[in-house]
Amino acid sequence: MPYSTFSTEIIIRPDDIDMNQHLHSTRYLDYVLTARFDQMGRCYGMSMEEFIKLGYSWVNTKTYVEYKREMKLGDTAVVFTHLDQLQERGCIVQFEIRSKATNKVCCNGWCEFVMVSIETGRSVIIPDFIIEKYSV
Amino acid sequence: MPYSTFSTEIIIRPDDIDMNQHLHSTRYLDYVLTARFDQMGRCYGMSMEEFIKLGYSWVNTKTYVEYKREMKLGDTAVVFTHLDQLQERGCIVQFEIRSKATNKVCCNGWCEFVMVSIETGRSVIIPDFIIEKYSV
Amino acid sequence: MPYSTFSTEIIIRPDDIDMNQHLHSTRYLDYVLTARFDQMGRCYGMSMEEFIKLGYSWVNTKTYVEYKREMKLGDTAVVFTHLDQLQERGCIVQFEIRSKATNKVCCNGWCEFVMVSIETGRSVIIPDFIIEKYSV
Amino acid sequence: MPYSTFSTEIIIRPDDIDMNQHLHSTRYLDYVLTARFDQMGRCYGMSMEEFIKLGYSWVNTKTYVEYKREMKLGDTAVVFTHLDQLQERGCIVQFEIRSKATNKVCCNGWCEFVMVSIETGRSVIIPDFIIEKYSV
Repeated sequence: MPYSTFSTEIIIRPDDIDMNQHLHSTRYLDYVLTARFDQMGRCYGMSMEEFIKLGYSWVNTKTYVEYKREMKLGDTAVVFTHLDQLQERGCIVQFEIRSKATNKVCCNGWCEFVMVSIETGRSVIIPDFIIEKYSV
Repeated sequence: MPYSTFSTEIIIRPDDIDMNQHLHSTRYLDYVLTARFDQMGRCYGMSMEEFIKLGYSWVNTKTYVEYKREMKLGDTAVVFTHLDQLQERGCIVQFEIRSKATNKVCCNGWCEFVMVSIETGRSVIIPDFIIEKYSV
Repeated sequence: MPYSTFSTEIIIRPDDIDMNQHLHSTRYLDYVLTARFDQMGRCYGMSMEEFIKLGYSWVNTKTYVEYKREMKLGDTAVVFTHLDQLQERGCIVQFEIRSKATNKVCCNGWCEFVMVSIETGRSVIIPDFIIEKYSV
Repeated sequence: MPYSTFSTEIIIRPDDIDMNQHLHSTRYLDYVLTARFDQMGRCYGMSMEEFIKLGYSWVNTKTYVEYKREMKLGDTAVVFTHLDQLQERGCIVQFEIRSKATNKVCCNGWCEFVMVSIETGRSVIIPDFIIEKYSV
């Protein structure tokens, strides 16, 4: 059973535009992180803030990204993400960014995140109630 | 007769947050620029793209900003701007950024912009049809 | 007796360049903050880290900036700062950014900072031993 | 025969630090791009500016990054890059970022770049004289 896909719209800002008049390559990844933060609370029902209150945080350990098409100022990025794997101590999130203007895929890839204890900085086993919330 | 005030909502991104868990001070100004780009096309009927097609651009020459309250991740910035002065070769834009969550003013100030010829890089007299479009 | 002026060199990064191939306007202020962090430890002998250990932090309350000349990729920014006023609860820092290539002033202005207690978030009276360290 | 490795030092700026007091994940990639721009002119003898004058540009098509260790404000990033493959229409650049304070590897990975014609936006065959300059 595949995990649900959620989306978040993000306005492209002038400070995101590079010398070629396109969305700067690293900002795609900032949009992905923004979408996950938004979706954690809104779609999974457990925001980053709630993780932090429990003494947990998430660390980005690996990222792979393919740039497909340019995005321009005036357009809005629609960031789709879904869990690909939910593991004992982390997860892999697949993402796809589409242009709102054309609906074409501009970028896709995946990020690996590990859940850590804020106190020790070390990875921890994800508690069952979190696994449950995120198994949608 | 005062000029109209327009507003633009901007999602706060994780990469905008600083080591104190607040919106980083210089990002307020990036939100102001984002709002102006959005409002140029949507509210005044002449986008930056159209200025560029005519060989014009706008340069930010002076900025004054007062930081009033912190903004946090999870909130949305509502950026209000209005023309304060529309001059022969430029304009002064007043801005105010409010928290969508509390409606409180987090930051305000003004920016001076000068219209330039892309070819020469020098300031130019703003044509009447542009003055008219922006006199709302 | 005027306060000492210190300088910090900052490499211009591609992600700092805007759609006009110039250093993006808000990055000048990020360069100023970078220079102050560098100079706090290196030139005044009391780094931000040491302030934080004592339960203090600094908040930027007002900023005024004048943009004089464009900066381009390949150049290095030389950021000069000096205290203009050292007050009971804060200070005003004057800054000037020069191009390393041409030595011309590209931007200048000032920032007002207030010292706060991390615990309460409120302004505090700056202790004498800090006033002394910064009175150079 | 392996290609040469070059390095560039980059000061960590306050606006690069995230809510966890660490260098924000996407900035590592901005540091890699900064290092390549620096090294193109300084180490290979053909800067991005010279590519642009000839009507060429470089587009980042794929990136893979592994985050190994946190970096903090006050440290300097030392970015090592080398060509892994120099292909008909592009190249693969390997990178490694070390802490100047500890000399430990904080992040590594690779980027694929394709050379394009600015006029058409399409990939082009890299001319022999460029292959030669970059075969060091």
